[in-house]
Amino acid sequence: MADQYCNVDHIKFLLNEVHNLEEVLKAERFADHDVESINLLIDAVKDLSDKEYFPYYEEMDAKPAELREDGIYVHPQVKNMMLKAGEMGITAGNFDYEHGGLQLPALASLATGYIMSAANNSAVMYTGLTSGAARLITSFGSKEQIEQYVPNMLNGKWGGTMCLTEPQAGSSLSDITSVAYPQEDGSYKIEGQKIFISSGDHQCVDNIIHLTLARIEGAPAGTKGISLFVVPKMRMQEDGSFVSNDVTAVGDFQKMGQRGNATAHLAFGENKNCVGWLVGAENRGLPQMFQMMNGARIEVGVSGASIASAAYEASLQYAKERPQGRRLQSGGKKDISAGQTLIINHPDVRRMLLLQKAVVEGSLSLIAEACRLEDMRHQLEGDEKKDAHLLLELLTPVVKTYPSEMGRVAVSTGLQVLGGYGFCTDFPLQQHYRDIRIMALYEGTTGIQSMDLLGRKVVMQNGKAMMLLVNKIQETMKAAGTYDEFKPYIKTLGTKLQDTQEIMQNLLQYAMKGDHEKFLADATIFMEFFGTIIIGWQWLKMATTAKEALVTGNTTQPTAFYESKIHTMKFFFKYEMPKTSAAKETLLDPNFLTLLEKETEKELIM
Amino acid sequence: MADQYCNVDHIKFLLNEVHNLEEVLKAERFADHDVESINLLIDAVKDLSDKEYFPYYEEMDAKPAELREDGIYVHPQVKNMMLKAGEMGITAGNFDYEHGGLQLPALASLATGYIMSAANNSAVMYTGLTSGAARLITSFGSKEQIEQYVPNMLNGKWGGTMCLTEPQAGSSLSDITSVAYPQEDGSYKIEGQKIFISSGDHQCVDNIIHLTLARIEGAPAGTKGISLFVVPKMRMQEDGSFVSNDVTAVGDFQKMGQRGNATAHLAFGENKNCVGWLVGAENRGLPQMFQMMNGARIEVGVSGASIASAAYEASLQYAKERPQGRRLQSGGKKDISAGQTLIINHPDVRRMLLLQKAVVEGSLSLIAEACRLEDMRHQLEGDEKKDAHLLLELLTPVVKTYPSEMGRVAVSTGLQVLGGYGFCTDFPLQQHYRDIRIMALYEGTTGIQSMDLLGRKVVMQNGKAMMLLVNKIQETMKAAGTYDEFKPYIKTLGTKLQDTQEIMQNLLQYAMKGDHEKFLADATIFMEFFGTIIIGWQWLKMATTAKEALVTGNTTQPTAFYESKIHTMKFFFKYEMPKTSAAKETLLDPNFLTLLEKETEKELIM
Repeated sequence: MADQYCNVDHIKFLLNEVHNLEEVLKAERFADHDVESINLLIDAVKDLSDKEYFPYYEEMDAKPAELREDGIYVHPQVKNMMLKAGEMGITAGNFDYEHGGLQLPALASLATGYIMSAANNSAVMYTGLTSGAARLITSFGSKEQIEQYVPNMLNGKWGGTMCLTEPQAGSSLSDITSVAYPQEDGSYKIEGQKIFISSGDHQCVDNIIHLTLARIEGAPAGTKGISLFVVPKMRMQEDGSFVSNDVTAVGDFQKMGQRGNATAHLAFGENKNCVGWLVGAENRGLPQMFQMMNGARIEVGVSGASIASAAYEASLQYAKERPQGRRLQSGGKKDISAGQTLIINHPDVRRMLLLQKAVVEGSLSLIAEACRLEDMRHQLEGDEKKDAHLLLELLTPVVKTYPSEMGRVAVSTGLQVLGGYGFCTDFPLQQHYRDIRIMALYEGTTGIQSMDLLGRKVVMQNGKAMMLLVNKIQETMKAAGTYDEFKPYIKTLGTKLQDTQEIMQNLLQYAMKGDHEKFLADATIFMEFFGTIIIGWQWLKMATTAKEALVTGNTTQPTAFYESKIHTMKFFFKYEMPKTSAAKETLLDPNFLTLLEKETEKELIM
Repeated sequence: MADQYCNVDHIKFLLNEVHNLEEVLKAERFADHDVESINLLIDAVKDLSDKEYFPYYEEMDAKPAELREDGIYVHPQVKNMMLKAGEMGITAGNFDYEHGGLQLPALASLATGYIMSAANNSAVMYTGLTSGAARLITSFGSKEQIEQYVPNMLNGKWGGTMCLTEPQAGSSLSDITSVAYPQEDGSYKIEGQKIFISSGDHQCVDNIIHLTLARIEGAPAGTKGISLFVVPKMRMQEDGSFVSNDVTAVGDFQKMGQRGNATAHLAFGENKNCVGWLVGAENRGLPQMFQMMNGARIEVGVSGASIASAAYEASLQYAKERPQGRRLQSGGKKDISAGQTLIINHPDVRRMLLLQKAVVEGSLSLIAEACRLEDMRHQLEGDEKKDAHLLLELLTPVVKTYPSEMGRVAVSTGLQVLGGYGFCTDFPLQQHYRDIRIMALYEGTTGIQSMDLLGRKVVMQNGKAMMLLVNKIQETMKAAGTYDEFKPYIKTLGTKLQDTQEIMQNLLQYAMKGDHEKFLADATIFMEFFGTIIIGWQWLKMATTAKEALVTGNTTQPTAFYESKIHTMKFFFKYEMPKTSAAKETLLDPNFLTLLEKETEKELIM
């Protein structure tokens, strides 16, 4: 197995050189942190991951979560992982001091989460979901709820989940039917079924706190009648002892990947004895959950990028060690009397490695861009603060989708680098390939993200977020313009912005006519188009930073490190950016837009 | 689990309506067959597959091949499968009567192989490889070798393999080091290691006949010194009894997919007691093996297409049964008081299903095109016969690669149709996703196929095969021109042929200068470009046939069946064909072609 799963130098380059962590740290909230302390934290988390996470990556896959009579059992190391992450403060990393947190900026939490996730993605789900559930309580819960649940969740003794999906509803949350019956003491009796609950049940924590969506009896239909409840697995009694709260794991979905994580089917109140407490106001469950959901979507992006990172490092190591074949000589001959060459010397292998690198590092840079927007709200005010939030909203579906979709392509490409060995369990690539596949499904499928992007985010406030984004991209183009070498790429990016405008105008005419199904029929293609441009922007930004470092000599890494950024940017513009031309052709095609939306045409799919 | 894995109507449509099996059958060799008898055979094989293959698909994955002390054990049903396929004559389908075959045309064998492979791909490998190995013996072996081995291979009692790959050589066959030491009786003692030997060892047959590449002691270096040997697992003694021939399964590669098939690491002659017999002439092993290899490459294409077919049928069934969400109404609202709609009514789901259909049926049509060329050599003569062979050579790497690469994309898309369920072992999509991944690696990776296509096939005889292909495509365009509806697609295809010309001229300048590494650096991108155009051609051909049937009323299927072909053709031209524009941009990019080929640039991949 490869001994490396992420490139810490690259992470620090993004934080400190590209996305200007130093500026972020000027907010009062982050007064106790500086660049050096965060670099030290990153190193400490890498060390933790080397010791407690990475060594269990294959084993947790080979011995997956399983349902026994008394619940789901997962790898026992999960207990250590949760406690260690709790002890180090990672789980509570960006929580307020008053809730036991470190008040880390999101950029720093991104770095730590990315490293741990690259080391062992299905393991990190346990702490990640706990952290997300705890944040819902600190954001919307009562003082008592915070005191009762949050400390043990953040120290790793208790777990947390988000319970949305139901068997009959899937992604359609308006069809949720779990019911909450009001009790005289202000609590509710909860009854219902939830499926696909990640980290939903296991023996490595003393309690699991389920943040659960349900309808208060008699609530309005649709998403407007959904409320949020905190429903513990073990309920505290008045004397401080705990009893079972009638939340039962009735199933454990067996999956092709992410097998170390328990994916539970939970039954609430099978014995009419499941108690939950309302979090926040009645019927506000969905908007509240979406706070967690937006964070969860960004975390899925992190998962995609980090699994792709682990795959990239494994492919790169293999390519640098494996001799096979010979380079082509003039006339296409090979010198068979010479020894074999390392496969990294074959152009096609380099193309594959560079694709991986371009996707992995480009994705992480985009996520960092989003985290920075999150962080800047602590020092921006008024319109600037609102703008940062709008921009974050626009980017979120892309942050979730690009690393999930293109990360999968990158991992598959990495598997290909290893040839037949990539398909065998002796190497981790096949596990990365299986693990990453869920990312395009978690927390809203790619189709749903694409409809969110085009149908909601792009058009919100009359396209204001798009305007803000274009300004940001133009800032990058302007900075890049300092260097003649970058002129062709700036020109390309400018053309792509014009194309975006043209496509938007073309699609919006359907929305104006009220034909929203037609407007959104090709939303997924628009996502491919838009995501690629966004990553191209990030690469131009990284390349410009690298060039600046080389020109000024203000470097923290060897020259080749910076040159590799410029090289990979050029690679991206040659091999990936042209895909936007294909998407444009599809999106602007005047003849065929009616292919999909007629109900009768489903007969033509047979 | 879905109860359908392939569409027999589509298979018959391709054979009888698109690729004119009736004309193929005019060859004297096929005198005993007619369209009706072949349709009956197809139905019989579907029945066999329903009963003996499909029910074991999941079980063979859940209980994979495993190495025990006395060899590799596979699912016991493999024995029945081999015997039944032997009894029905399928294994020997297109062999000569004198060798116990049915003299079926390749088109008919394609149909039977495709159905069985869609039902249970890893199981079909056992008969497929046996058939390929037997063909090598009938083609190049002595009369005695044919008599000794072939009957028991074709009746399903014995298995067969092809042993090429060695640990130190991988895809680089010039580095094979297995040795054959000449013995006085004309036989050879074989010593060496072979890896990744599919169906390489198992208990379901009495003997396994390994067609093995090795160097006769003192043979020239490189591929010119490789000979072909028949090396049985059990060696017949003079009294007719069998003893072990010192071929030992020392390993069984555990894989993420195709787990029902044994992938052996074989040691030949560990006890200096492994005897092999030369097949054909000394040092002719590689060209001989390539006869089998070309067939094997086509079979990999069949595997890719057929797994994608099984995935498509499963996705389609799910989409037609699963209610979720609501269609968008004017203004983007949803009517939550209405019941949920079936997911096939969501445009994005239809797009995904149509992509699957376009890839599955387009791939099979391309493979049928290749099989037809193979069949026509039995009635063509002189230059026409040579031309058909040339064209087949040109198409073979595409026949192998498109279904493998795009089949994987189609399966992944199909998994997406099922949402989270697609990732779970309750549904077969995740197995299809795992199984199909090997196809881009088997029998020459995509990179190797692409170099073969661009570096050898496209340029052979000064581009004659390309010229022949363009003529064929233009024939299709002409036929399509009868119908105004097809004019835009004909125009697009014409443009793509011009683009091909332009790209070839651009790339060939490097070959002229002797810079073959540069010439071939983007061969894989060229494969993507070329493969998509070829499938576009097949879709135009299918659509034209369908239109003709509708116009003339000469139909064997309901109207919607033919309309669905035209619909899917339009889909392909809207959603897939534009990808060739992206590939063209990459291939013609004047600035960046030097990205990959400099040795020093490997430092930039870090």
